[in-house]
Amino acid sequence: MMKKVKLGIIGFGAQGSAYAGFIAEGKVENMEVGAICDIDPDKKALATEKHPDAPFYDNYTEMIESGNVDAIVTCVPHYLHPEMGIAALKANIHALVEKPAGVYTKQVRELNEFADTKPELTFGIMFNQRTNELYQKVKEIVDNGEIGDIRRTNWIITTWWRPQGYYDQSAWRATWEGEGGGVLVNQAPHQLDLLQWICGMPKKVYSNVKYGYQRDIAVEDEVTTILDYGNGATGVFITCTHDVMGTDRFEILGDKGKIVVDDSKKVTIKRLKQPESEMSSNMSMQDVMEIFMGKGPGELYDEEVIEFESVWGAQHTAVLKNFAANVLDGTPLIAPGSDGIHGVAFANAIHLSSWLGKEVELPVDEDLYLAELNKKIEEEKRTPIEK
Amino acid sequence: MMKKVKLGIIGFGAQGSAYAGFIAEGKVENMEVGAICDIDPDKKALATEKHPDAPFYDNYTEMIESGNVDAIVTCVPHYLHPEMGIAALKANIHALVEKPAGVYTKQVRELNEFADTKPELTFGIMFNQRTNELYQKVKEIVDNGEIGDIRRTNWIITTWWRPQGYYDQSAWRATWEGEGGGVLVNQAPHQLDLLQWICGMPKKVYSNVKYGYQRDIAVEDEVTTILDYGNGATGVFITCTHDVMGTDRFEILGDKGKIVVDDSKKVTIKRLKQPESEMSSNMSMQDVMEIFMGKGPGELYDEEVIEFESVWGAQHTAVLKNFAANVLDGTPLIAPGSDGIHGVAFANAIHLSSWLGKEVELPVDEDLYLAELNKKIEEEKRTPIEK
Repeated sequence: MMKKVKLGIIGFGAQGSAYAGFIAEGKVENMEVGAICDIDPDKKALATEKHPDAPFYDNYTEMIESGNVDAIVTCVPHYLHPEMGIAALKANIHALVEKPAGVYTKQVRELNEFADTKPELTFGIMFNQRTNELYQKVKEIVDNGEIGDIRRTNWIITTWWRPQGYYDQSAWRATWEGEGGGVLVNQAPHQLDLLQWICGMPKKVYSNVKYGYQRDIAVEDEVTTILDYGNGATGVFITCTHDVMGTDRFEILGDKGKIVVDDSKKVTIKRLKQPESEMSSNMSMQDVMEIFMGKGPGELYDEEVIEFESVWGAQHTAVLKNFAANVLDGTPLIAPGSDGIHGVAFANAIHLSSWLGKEVELPVDEDLYLAELNKKIEEEKRTPIEK
Repeated sequence: MMKKVKLGIIGFGAQGSAYAGFIAEGKVENMEVGAICDIDPDKKALATEKHPDAPFYDNYTEMIESGNVDAIVTCVPHYLHPEMGIAALKANIHALVEKPAGVYTKQVRELNEFADTKPELTFGIMFNQRTNELYQKVKEIVDNGEIGDIRRTNWIITTWWRPQGYYDQSAWRATWEGEGGGVLVNQAPHQLDLLQWICGMPKKVYSNVKYGYQRDIAVEDEVTTILDYGNGATGVFITCTHDVMGTDRFEILGDKGKIVVDDSKKVTIKRLKQPESEMSSNMSMQDVMEIFMGKGPGELYDEEVIEFESVWGAQHTAVLKNFAANVLDGTPLIAPGSDGIHGVAFANAIHLSSWLGKEVELPVDEDLYLAELNKKIEEEKRTPIEK
């Protein structure tokens, strides 16, 4: 019989119980539910009913030290991911952290630095959208240089619609103290990760962020950001939670082609027959007129369209499987835990730019970010938002 | 026989000769070519050959005072539009100015103020894209409140591809002294006008503008701008001349719907069955899950798709006809001359934000803008770009 990784699930909320369910249903063949932990005693009955063989703990340290788990996953509020990751690794338990890796880079850096001292352990992050074949294909095309050097990126990702009822589910949700942000911290980390994974990190950002614009919340429900990659290339990143007809459109323009992703399902790749810079140098206005009036610019490039299907849940099980495989046989991780810091640094820079009202350079000053975040938390305590 | 407006064409370059041709071919039935003017003596032979009945002048003041023209059109470098407009109106000649109305608002304001003193004369501007039925339809939908209050606007208009050969055609092109800017002044004024015509002017802008990024020019070939409408609504405006696979995608999100225009040809209108704010207030997370997992968000709105055809040249003749009709019988202007200042103010703010490296409020300080523009002109004289 194949050896299985015994996973300790910390937090038996929506995400934690979904993972336990996938594993119990055999969707992650190299894993079993080792134990479940939640500080809410009401969760015990539910957890034991659904997973009778898995011991239940109300204290994660106890679970880590119990000998019942080889690894843990942190399905808890974002602020707690780093300390739980560190505690697990310290006890020689493999750690899979939920996204975002943390709320501010200072705490995520501590996690990464500690993980570096335990290279024999598996340290992963739940960037399930990296398992989407579409984005793997896009990354491959960019990495191969098929569209040349990147000149522009543009992602409008406003499909994260959340009604007021979502925010009202619990007191900590959409607060500075409870979550450390809104759409940037809770929903958009996936796209921030994919964007940096595929196109690299920007060197500077300027943002216009709306806090409690269309919802009664303290944190952001809309983000508009200009990215500057420092080499001439620019980008735009837009997200919000108030567009029920949400747009998901990601465009990458390179020297030699263009990629447009619609709805994370369809990718259109245009490959120029010669680099744009050569066309610019070599073509006369007469040639240009001929192309635009006659043949049409379609003759300048080949177009490929690929449609992908996606299955809900398959992404998360794929990350769980890959994580377990890394534990068992060293299969490379799709999302190494240390990658989590990029999305957090990205989100921190976007927040900080809007707080300071100016463009900021990356990486931002970690202490400054934390001081500003703490100000928001203090403000919120003085004048809480009526949800 | 119907009375015709005798048009004096100032500048017999690409645009001026095209207009003369349209009129001579009878495409503008309420106009005739009254006279042609160009400071380049080489143009005389060509003009007289093609338009033997139209007297040729090498001095526009002489043409205005000749009695041969009822109106003029200014097909000359942008800086000259205001002074020629004023000179015509002063001589009681109707004036149609090319876009942009000028390079900086100070000179355009002088034109507008002078035109105000001559209400009996027709003062128009060549915003030919306003005659596009698609944009008229979009404006109508927005003005009717069919998509509610605007929350976001987003226009990526990178179809203005121009190779280096275009810029090398003449020494004045793409210089601060000759044109006062690049894509913002020469190509994108159409979209800046349409954007403000349909969605109103922003109150603040922040821009990242690339000067001579992919072309050997002093002025901008790429623009990325965040718009803040001052009421919570935001926007993005992107344009460039280095994308040969250019994108033209305009999205407007409102409280009650969304409009997406693709390639200035296809418009997709989504009308919500109830305003988003009501949906947000009234729906539980359970309702939300049902919609997204089951029925799909399509049940939340009606979708209408309209495709338009466009015919090259028809837009310009439509503006000429409309202008002449206003002269002859008071038909309302599609593009009153006084509207020209908005696009110039918009472009000036985008330039100024990038020069100062910060968000600027509109209207920008006219004197500051002109002083900064003059600095660019001086700099360019000291170190001209090798084209």
